[in-house]
Amino acid sequence: MRELTIEDIDDLAAGATLLGTGGGGDPYVGKLLVKQAIADHGPAELVEPDDLPEEGRVLTTAIIGAPTVILEKIPAGTEFRAGIGALAAYLGEDPVALMSIEVGGVNTLVPIATAVELGLPIIDADGMRRAFPQIEMTVFTLHGLMAAPLSIADDKGNMCVFEATTNQKAEALARAAVVELGMATSISCYPMTVGDVRRAGIGGSITYCTEVGRRLAQIKQGAEGAWQELLDYTDAALVFSGKVIDIDRRTIEGFARGTVVLEHLEDATRTMRVEIQNENLIAFEEGKAVVTVPDLLCLLDYESADPMTTESLAYGQRLNVLAMPCAPEWHRDGMLELVGPRAFGYDIDYVDFRGHR
Amino acid sequence: MRELTIEDIDDLAAGATLLGTGGGGDPYVGKLLVKQAIADHGPAELVEPDDLPEEGRVLTTAIIGAPTVILEKIPAGTEFRAGIGALAAYLGEDPVALMSIEVGGVNTLVPIATAVELGLPIIDADGMRRAFPQIEMTVFTLHGLMAAPLSIADDKGNMCVFEATTNQKAEALARAAVVELGMATSISCYPMTVGDVRRAGIGGSITYCTEVGRRLAQIKQGAEGAWQELLDYTDAALVFSGKVIDIDRRTIEGFARGTVVLEHLEDATRTMRVEIQNENLIAFEEGKAVVTVPDLLCLLDYESADPMTTESLAYGQRLNVLAMPCAPEWHRDGMLELVGPRAFGYDIDYVDFRGHR
Repeated sequence: MRELTIEDIDDLAAGATLLGTGGGGDPYVGKLLVKQAIADHGPAELVEPDDLPEEGRVLTTAIIGAPTVILEKIPAGTEFRAGIGALAAYLGEDPVALMSIEVGGVNTLVPIATAVELGLPIIDADGMRRAFPQIEMTVFTLHGLMAAPLSIADDKGNMCVFEATTNQKAEALARAAVVELGMATSISCYPMTVGDVRRAGIGGSITYCTEVGRRLAQIKQGAEGAWQELLDYTDAALVFSGKVIDIDRRTIEGFARGTVVLEHLEDATRTMRVEIQNENLIAFEEGKAVVTVPDLLCLLDYESADPMTTESLAYGQRLNVLAMPCAPEWHRDGMLELVGPRAFGYDIDYVDFRGHR
Repeated sequence: MRELTIEDIDDLAAGATLLGTGGGGDPYVGKLLVKQAIADHGPAELVEPDDLPEEGRVLTTAIIGAPTVILEKIPAGTEFRAGIGALAAYLGEDPVALMSIEVGGVNTLVPIATAVELGLPIIDADGMRRAFPQIEMTVFTLHGLMAAPLSIADDKGNMCVFEATTNQKAEALARAAVVELGMATSISCYPMTVGDVRRAGIGGSITYCTEVGRRLAQIKQGAEGAWQELLDYTDAALVFSGKVIDIDRRTIEGFARGTVVLEHLEDATRTMRVEIQNENLIAFEEGKAVVTVPDLLCLLDYESADPMTTESLAYGQRLNVLAMPCAPEWHRDGMLELVGPRAFGYDIDYVDFRGHR
């Protein structure tokens, strides 16, 4: 067990923005929620699954919706407690800890704020170690764990509990409810035991996220060799440096979709196209995919190294494009069917960006 | 208390088809379900609210979806018990009786079949004494009773429980789930006490429906004065006799919508246009509304007097158009806002068809 204090939160949020690969909602709001919760109730208690009883119930909480809407609709906080309370009541069992379903984006931070408010520890693990736009896109699904029963709640008193025969059906039911409830609600899914988290979770992801954020801060401070340290720690590669020459974003069917085109800073004949569905999914150069899901595709401000969310992208920005391998826990049977390019409707194969360094 | 036996069911189903005003799903399937249930478990026990304890819990069950799909997708039966079981578990209270939410269409019969299977009585009351396409369109809403908590279930194990701050929000959430679950599922909504039913329900609607069906059977048998008896019992008027010269049906946003145009059998210069949204809503003659919701607009075969469902309408059919006043319980503050023409998107006023006799 270790404590997460207010001093840790800026690094955690910066790391979450990078691992959010443009989506997962802007962590800024989550940062405010966590800092307020810690100021009110004291530090967050970060625990390992081994610190908890094997049969203990672990619940998750997150914001679900379109990042473009989440940015505009500040969470009340009550929707997270309402969703967890509803699911706990439905299960007839209170949680021993909370967990982030995705470490990447605002949903890294929301469960920490909620755990602090509820006086529960937060487990240092998650189901993605990045952000993905759909509920079924977790390593838990690869382990056969069910996303339902799950709850959806807003801050007005609307609430849904779903049972679903597949995680894809859970996604469809939850998404339909989210659209009806204004595109940004809480979700509590994948109710698990501590044993499930031990077996199936991506361990240490909150710590990893904080360490990533610490290295980003070092780059910002101009520390010698800081860029290389980030690349080494994450095993990442800088695949492109360019200027935004075209950008297209739209919110359809509950998702923020879009395309960004970059022109290379040193060679104007080279362009890179980044495809977005809430998160940055695939980078193409000359029509050829060079980075694909489930690996991480991160856009950072060329000067400040600030990770860019989809909503903050603008014409003329100069960006570095970073490719980062997904967590090793993803490499299991069924990974590409679940989170490879075809799972997002692209008729292309997964490419290992490290072949392009 | 009286028993409903297999011999009562044909009349009940015929009445339900007429009161379904073209929608509410074809009662044929419901008839089979009830007859099977009675054959397996014995007669249904039809009770008055006064036969039950004031604080007893009353649950409803129904099919929700598009009639065009309901016709194709025969219910398994298990979805009704699953939905009631889920809601009872959520409420922490077992029902003392079931009730039909609408007496009109298949949903007149489904709760009777389910009550027989569960060994529960069925209350001789409902919330519409006709069929309406949306959950909030009940006299219960006019009394301030809530549609949620409600449950949605299919026969595969998918299940939803919703809490909603308004009955309109309950409709929106349920409809979105129904679309995801294939357009025909069970719904259990308006969990009430027996006292609520006494105060707010339309009493005697199952008996009324059976009596309507009995009169239809007499017309079919060619009994003297049978047509007049039906008109007298229901206070109805025959407003048009015509031939179908145009018909347009489509399933959109979870509803079956359409238009039917009739040419008068004796005066080809007269045409009547009937607007459909699951049910027959409004009849226009020369662009002027002559029958409007919430009054009932029924199409019957000209020769056999068989009530026609929307799906069974076809080009060239000769039909009688019957207008029937809605149950007097509808005439309360808020009726027209909830179920008048404007509630269905028509910018016209309610007309009393009896001004046109």
